[in-house]
Amino acid sequence: MTRWPIPDPMARALALARSAAAEGEVPVGAVVVRAGEVIGEGRNAPRGTHDPTAHAEVAAIRAAASTIGDERLTDCDLYVTLEPCAMCAGAIVHARIARLYYAASDPKGGAVAHGARVFDHPQCLHRPEVYSGIGEAEAADLLRTFFRARR
Amino acid sequence: MTRWPIPDPMARALALARSAAAEGEVPVGAVVVRAGEVIGEGRNAPRGTHDPTAHAEVAAIRAAASTIGDERLTDCDLYVTLEPCAMCAGAIVHARIARLYYAASDPKGGAVAHGARVFDHPQCLHRPEVYSGIGEAEAADLLRTFFRARR
Repeated sequence: MTRWPIPDPMARALALARSAAAEGEVPVGAVVVRAGEVIGEGRNAPRGTHDPTAHAEVAAIRAAASTIGDERLTDCDLYVTLEPCAMCAGAIVHARIARLYYAASDPKGGAVAHGARVFDHPQCLHRPEVYSGIGEAEAADLLRTFFRARR
Repeated sequence: MTRWPIPDPMARALALARSAAAEGEVPVGAVVVRAGEVIGEGRNAPRGTHDPTAHAEVAAIRAAASTIGDERLTDCDLYVTLEPCAMCAGAIVHARIARLYYAASDPKGGAVAHGARVFDHPQCLHRPEVYSGIGEAEAADLLRTFFRARR
């Protein structure tokens, strides 16, 4: 567990995660940043939108690509509160995200440091720099509180 | 290479792949079927839509989930002309697709029988039945013709 001031984009991702929880969605939030500016953001919304692909990262990437009118988010960073799953890690590859920052680790559903380890195969077309742990306590607490309330 | 009559949903996926190629997109098409009826279809469109997540499978799954108003596509089958990548395999897991039929194998970008092998990890929440090879010659020929013309 890292104790460190939370960078603004991760603070925004945590706020998005909180707003997801308020709507009954698993609390995960994400933002895409280019040159210090947020160009896309998203929160988990599969239940409300009836869209199994509506994870925070996919929403943030789609929004950012739409903002700049380019399917490639070269030179962009993605901040997300939870370790991406295989679907989202794949989306990060396709978008050519330069740096991935995630807060909480996800041994069950994560596919960066666990399971499918999407970036770690020779076939992987693009591997972002990966950083993790900052905001972990806050992100994990949001998830714990959410699931405890649902039990 | 399998020689076998092409089932209707795969024939439709191949037609969608052809229409993608006509718009300058990598020719891949997909349909979701429930009880013999197509409830969602999609074709590759990341260039035209500036959306790196706009793969045929994601589009078909989103359309099908919207059609039935449920993020879970239990009892639904997905037909796609190319082996799904990690992103699309992850989307198939989240959607709880019952059976996956793909035509051409993709040793470079595929993540079902290659690379990340998304369904083959103990963490994988849902594993569809997987069938492959029918329509392979047609799907591979579309891709070859497309990339040859671009060189």
